[in-house]
Amino acid sequence: MPRRTYRLLIDCPDRPGIIAATTGFVRDHAGNILEADQHSDPNVGRFAMRLEIDPEGFELDESSFAGAWRAIADEYDMTWALRSGEAPRRVAIFVGPETHCVSDLLWRVRTGELDADVAMVVSNHDGARASAEPLGFPFVHAPVTPETKGDQEQQVLELLDGAGVELVVLARYMQILSPAFVAHYPSRIINIHHSFLPAFAGARPYHQAFERGVKLIGATSHYVSAELDDGPIIAQDTAAVTHRDRIEDLVRKGRDLERTVLARAVRLHVEDRIIVRGRRTVVFE
Amino acid sequence: MPRRTYRLLIDCPDRPGIIAATTGFVRDHAGNILEADQHSDPNVGRFAMRLEIDPEGFELDESSFAGAWRAIADEYDMTWALRSGEAPRRVAIFVGPETHCVSDLLWRVRTGELDADVAMVVSNHDGARASAEPLGFPFVHAPVTPETKGDQEQQVLELLDGAGVELVVLARYMQILSPAFVAHYPSRIINIHHSFLPAFAGARPYHQAFERGVKLIGATSHYVSAELDDGPIIAQDTAAVTHRDRIEDLVRKGRDLERTVLARAVRLHVEDRIIVRGRRTVVFE
Amino acid sequence: MPRRTYRLLIDCPDRPGIIAATTGFVRDHAGNILEADQHSDPNVGRFAMRLEIDPEGFELDESSFAGAWRAIADEYDMTWALRSGEAPRRVAIFVGPETHCVSDLLWRVRTGELDADVAMVVSNHDGARASAEPLGFPFVHAPVTPETKGDQEQQVLELLDGAGVELVVLARYMQILSPAFVAHYPSRIINIHHSFLPAFAGARPYHQAFERGVKLIGATSHYVSAELDDGPIIAQDTAAVTHRDRIEDLVRKGRDLERTVLARAVRLHVEDRIIVRGRRTVVFE
Amino acid sequence: MPRRTYRLLIDCPDRPGIIAATTGFVRDHAGNILEADQHSDPNVGRFAMRLEIDPEGFELDESSFAGAWRAIADEYDMTWALRSGEAPRRVAIFVGPETHCVSDLLWRVRTGELDADVAMVVSNHDGARASAEPLGFPFVHAPVTPETKGDQEQQVLELLDGAGVELVVLARYMQILSPAFVAHYPSRIINIHHSFLPAFAGARPYHQAFERGVKLIGATSHYVSAELDDGPIIAQDTAAVTHRDRIEDLVRKGRDLERTVLARAVRLHVEDRIIVRGRRTVVFE
Repeated sequence: MPRRTYRLLIDCPDRPGIIAATTGFVRDHAGNILEADQHSDPNVGRFAMRLEIDPEGFELDESSFAGAWRAIADEYDMTWALRSGEAPRRVAIFVGPETHCVSDLLWRVRTGELDADVAMVVSNHDGARASAEPLGFPFVHAPVTPETKGDQEQQVLELLDGAGVELVVLARYMQILSPAFVAHYPSRIINIHHSFLPAFAGARPYHQAFERGVKLIGATSHYVSAELDDGPIIAQDTAAVTHRDRIEDLVRKGRDLERTVLARAVRLHVEDRIIVRGRRTVVFE
Repeated sequence: MPRRTYRLLIDCPDRPGIIAATTGFVRDHAGNILEADQHSDPNVGRFAMRLEIDPEGFELDESSFAGAWRAIADEYDMTWALRSGEAPRRVAIFVGPETHCVSDLLWRVRTGELDADVAMVVSNHDGARASAEPLGFPFVHAPVTPETKGDQEQQVLELLDGAGVELVVLARYMQILSPAFVAHYPSRIINIHHSFLPAFAGARPYHQAFERGVKLIGATSHYVSAELDDGPIIAQDTAAVTHRDRIEDLVRKGRDLERTVLARAVRLHVEDRIIVRGRRTVVFE
Repeated sequence: MPRRTYRLLIDCPDRPGIIAATTGFVRDHAGNILEADQHSDPNVGRFAMRLEIDPEGFELDESSFAGAWRAIADEYDMTWALRSGEAPRRVAIFVGPETHCVSDLLWRVRTGELDADVAMVVSNHDGARASAEPLGFPFVHAPVTPETKGDQEQQVLELLDGAGVELVVLARYMQILSPAFVAHYPSRIINIHHSFLPAFAGARPYHQAFERGVKLIGATSHYVSAELDDGPIIAQDTAAVTHRDRIEDLVRKGRDLERTVLARAVRLHVEDRIIVRGRRTVVFE
Repeated sequence: MPRRTYRLLIDCPDRPGIIAATTGFVRDHAGNILEADQHSDPNVGRFAMRLEIDPEGFELDESSFAGAWRAIADEYDMTWALRSGEAPRRVAIFVGPETHCVSDLLWRVRTGELDADVAMVVSNHDGARASAEPLGFPFVHAPVTPETKGDQEQQVLELLDGAGVELVVLARYMQILSPAFVAHYPSRIINIHHSFLPAFAGARPYHQAFERGVKLIGATSHYVSAELDDGPIIAQDTAAVTHRDRIEDLVRKGRDLERTVLARAVRLHVEDRIIVRGRRTVVFE
């Protein structure tokens, strides 16, 4: 079972005393720090911190925290977020014809490895229904054509809003979301791209990799931004290939990469371990 | 000590009977096959093979082989090469201000791990002399400016020709060779690029990688072709990095990648394990 | 879809002419070799070969092959096997309370990635039924106690024989099979052990790994032999861990290793890519 | 160039307020924390922390620190150490007939990648002299026989003491140090063992690995303790091998593992990133 904890994420200009001020604040409100992680980036002069605080005995809760915390946050010019892990993240998983990633995610959710509450699985392919409904997850068939794309996205957005979805996971969705849709979930849409980005962005990356004759294939999980395949990277991995591997072998080997890399990125997000800074991520693992 | 063997490399259209014809030929001339490796590529309809033949008892040598072999080679429309491993490859190593790759290669040559005869180490930086001469390897200081580049290359080419150099290794040379120079050594110049190509081709790949926020860095060893950083890839590897790694950490971690990847590519070449097909390589490892 | 091919596996004393004789035989019977792989082991003086032959046009089939082949097999003192890939392997998967490996295997079978015909899933835990039956795979609940073990094994063996099972996969079965059961399936029972064998053989390997403070965990897939966790190894992999990883984190990270390593071993077996030699395996990959 | 910083290592029972007390102390003495890392281990109920403090402006130095710090250290029952990185560690490297590890370490020292001051290279093989003296490192030839072992160790110990050596690195020394010698440098002797410990402890691990038919080889760097190959592990890595790899190939592939794993362990030690707890290490990387 995942731990029920408060997670405090801080991003601010780097200067002396931040850790002392923050951890002193927690102590003064009877909080016990279970995990702490910091990062000073001299290149940009910024400081980042993640605290995991035991709710047991802590005198503040999500609503009272902001008021008590304001003085320190202002003094150090912090961007910050406190999240209680009491309720798991509400997640929607979008999927296309390939279901290995969604199957893997749902398996991890069911075993408790991934602390997420899957509100729905959405697909433009009705065939994906079989990967969700028999396991007890709601499925939404949302067919799309170039003509209906705007309407489809609007309807899906309403469904997501209605269900309180906080995170959208594109588990090989194969549709490009409109800028409006993306803007609705800033740093809250995670995609898996089946290459080691920035190599082989765009369509058919395994074909591109085969043509180029690379000796490794890769997978990249990243937040979706306005620019295609260009959002902040969360996790990547590679696997060796040889001249013997045909394109279908790259696809087969790639599936194992894709599902582990995507699952890792989603886990990092739902455990509040990621701070986004421009095109880079700070990942407290 | 490396084995002294004949290595036969074959590339031809794929059709039945090639292996039987070739291995039958070897048997009929009292040859013993020590290692055999084949590859049929259905995508391009071509067949590749590498045979390693024990010189002990084999009735043919490098000069008599071609005459005896012609009938089969013609029948199957083969591109082929036979090389005796009796004399190690004559190699020139080009190096810039960073000497980790050349030091690593020379160490492997001295221990016998790399079966090469280093004719000379060439650098436009006289500081590289200290990595070669104390270990007994000839060093050539060949300074270069934009104005003198043509002349410098011409002089170096003459030195290489005079020394019977068969393979040029660019061990972080940091100079772009002219098309004329490259054409002089087709598929016989090996470069190490400090990124996972095709990502981050060109200058300052670690800076590019840092800016993009990737979670892995890479190194790529490839044959040099007319197009910069676009030649056939021989070997690649990656290593994990995090937000904690500054550019200098990427450089440090990258050095270990670069030297192992380059050493691997050079070893594959001097052991006659590579067939080049357009932008792809068949590597019999 | 997997290729329907003949796979010929040969193991014999090493001497000149084997490849020529074998490939000449195939050619003389109008066979086209799709894939060929050889290995000479100078340490033991033995030669191993795998040929994949296109059934299209080949004049021999499984029944006529042995008669035609006998002369060569005898001349070279070969141990050999020919298998038509026309019918996929009949496989039984044994599983205990942990279902990640069986789920992964069944998923790969359903997508066609693993060319196997799952005759049944067997478990001493009825809870495993949910991982098999909803996907259309027969499930056998075979409870076991120390007292009933002999009987249970006997009943299961009869079921396996009746179903024509050729390969037993222990997908985290957690029961030690009797020597009699093991002897019934020589080199045809594949186990996954959740450590890098020979380290941490026996019970609770993640606990052992934690106590020892290793910095990598591993998984090993091997054929089951009379000696516990000592059979010939087929595939292994490792993953990095740190002091931050609690035992439950080792278990979580280990699950991903276990399922990919086991799936790889099963794939190699059903594609007839493995020759067993004492405690070692030759794996033509 | 390595950063000149104070490194504070703390190990104590886990309870609320430690981070606040410690970082508050640093702030109150005008110190700026450059890097901070913590670890709470619920299994053993202990807390570990590493702080890197900018010497610029910090009001305490190594001699005045202890007095000011005592109150907090006592309150939380801390085991602690403060070390100024002003002077690099004094290191002795012991080596046997194989010189790849010592060559690699000395190369990293010369390039500044490894912040160490090599007081001497010690070997029972005079042939190792060539790996040290030409590069300007003092070499001590200390031949040893079973009869002279006690005397040899005594003489070497006196040399080390005289030279102020703080860390002994066994870079493939191949001699077992006596318990008395080991006791002289508790957690200050680092060894590289050429296997993935605890597999293949003792002599000739590559031969053992070959016999067992493993599909990965490994290397392990650990502190030397009274029990052979059983000390706390600092770093490990593995590399894939196949049936094609003869013992000499394992040795060749292993060399690359050994030198990177040992270099990593030594770097972690000289940067004061390791806390030893029984047979486990906390490594703040």
